[in-house]
Amino acid sequence: MPQKTDAPIEVTAFSWVPPFARGHVRDLRVRWALEEAGLDYRTRLISAIDRPADYYREQPFGQVPHYREGDVALFESGAIVLHIAEKDERLMPRDPVGRARAITWAVAALNSIEPGIMHLADIDLFCAGQEWARLRRPDAVRQVEGRLDRLAAALGDKPWLEERFTVGDLLMVEALRNLSPDRLAIPDVLTAYVARGEARPAFKAAMAAQMADFISDDAVQSEGVSA
Amino acid sequence: MPQKTDAPIEVTAFSWVPPFARGHVRDLRVRWALEEAGLDYRTRLISAIDRPADYYREQPFGQVPHYREGDVALFESGAIVLHIAEKDERLMPRDPVGRARAITWAVAALNSIEPGIMHLADIDLFCAGQEWARLRRPDAVRQVEGRLDRLAAALGDKPWLEERFTVGDLLMVEALRNLSPDRLAIPDVLTAYVARGEARPAFKAAMAAQMADFISDDAVQSEGVSA
Repeated sequence: MPQKTDAPIEVTAFSWVPPFARGHVRDLRVRWALEEAGLDYRTRLISAIDRPADYYREQPFGQVPHYREGDVALFESGAIVLHIAEKDERLMPRDPVGRARAITWAVAALNSIEPGIMHLADIDLFCAGQEWARLRRPDAVRQVEGRLDRLAAALGDKPWLEERFTVGDLLMVEALRNLSPDRLAIPDVLTAYVARGEARPAFKAAMAAQMADFISDDAVQSEGVSA
Repeated sequence: MPQKTDAPIEVTAFSWVPPFARGHVRDLRVRWALEEAGLDYRTRLISAIDRPADYYREQPFGQVPHYREGDVALFESGAIVLHIAEKDERLMPRDPVGRARAITWAVAALNSIEPGIMHLADIDLFCAGQEWARLRRPDAVRQVEGRLDRLAAALGDKPWLEERFTVGDLLMVEALRNLSPDRLAIPDVLTAYVARGEARPAFKAAMAAQMADFISDDAVQSEGVSA
């Protein structure tokens, strides 16, 4: 859905991030879910460099996204996406069996797949060149590859983890997107799975919307830390 | 609730784990939620040492717990606990505002608090003595302590994260229980918060039930890998 300034749903995102992080900030998951559900939203942009002090009252860790809809307020992209999914059968099956599987895969993405991927991102991105990262890398890669092999076996030759796309696939694809194929062995079926997710019109619209909201590098340089 | 062999809810757990892991295996969260909701369950015990090959069809990563209730099957303790919470207003408020907050804190526990704690457990427990762990520890501690300070500020002087105990507290307390107070600075309000959670009758019953299900060390030694 196009963003609308009078939409009842407000998503808080960053006004600027370094180039390597663009397309990976976690409001992307929320925008994607809103697009899948066909829900309008407006964005509130805050500075990642100089976060408003009172923002910590809304989001205790200072992260984005934050979500507001009247009196309902959530943080944690995973929680927000589950909240949005409840609104639309296309993300969350209404039958108890399908619903249970969608929630299972959503939490598997957040708690069994993503932590290892973020650990690898620490090693390869944020702490690259540090001695601990060099020493740790082989085991960290082995652990993530082990999980990916199991996930690939569970996916098999299906397009999605269960009979059809759900919120579980949305979060799983988004977690897997933070892997670098040149840095570890990603099973082919998972590479194709991520590509299938990224080919969805709702994903593309969400990505375009995140990119469109960033102010230019020139603007952030002239504004300094107020960006 | 006492375990009942004819209960419709089946929880899969390990028949034996090393002493240091007892009271920390993740079926504890599920047992705790079931006790809070007053729901009977039966356990299916499998070997942690020699997992049945076909178990990976139910739980792709070979972990416990697994949950079954008729045709409904879930894995991931966080997903199972959210599923149980839907059954009982004591765990999941029925009003939209309270519900959103409960889900927010549940996911915060799983995705913003627990990964750092498990990283510390890797450093202090599973990889103790390794050079990477020694080099990495100061920054890992600093990151967890930063998150704990923010969480403590959000909790403030309230007994629970929102107006009353919810599934969000259950998962947060359970994540925090894996911190070692002799290894980093835990804010006093969080120490008291964990103690409050552990003092709940439902927690105590869950802990006793997990402990009672382990076979003895003698039995595992005589049975070898079939334990």
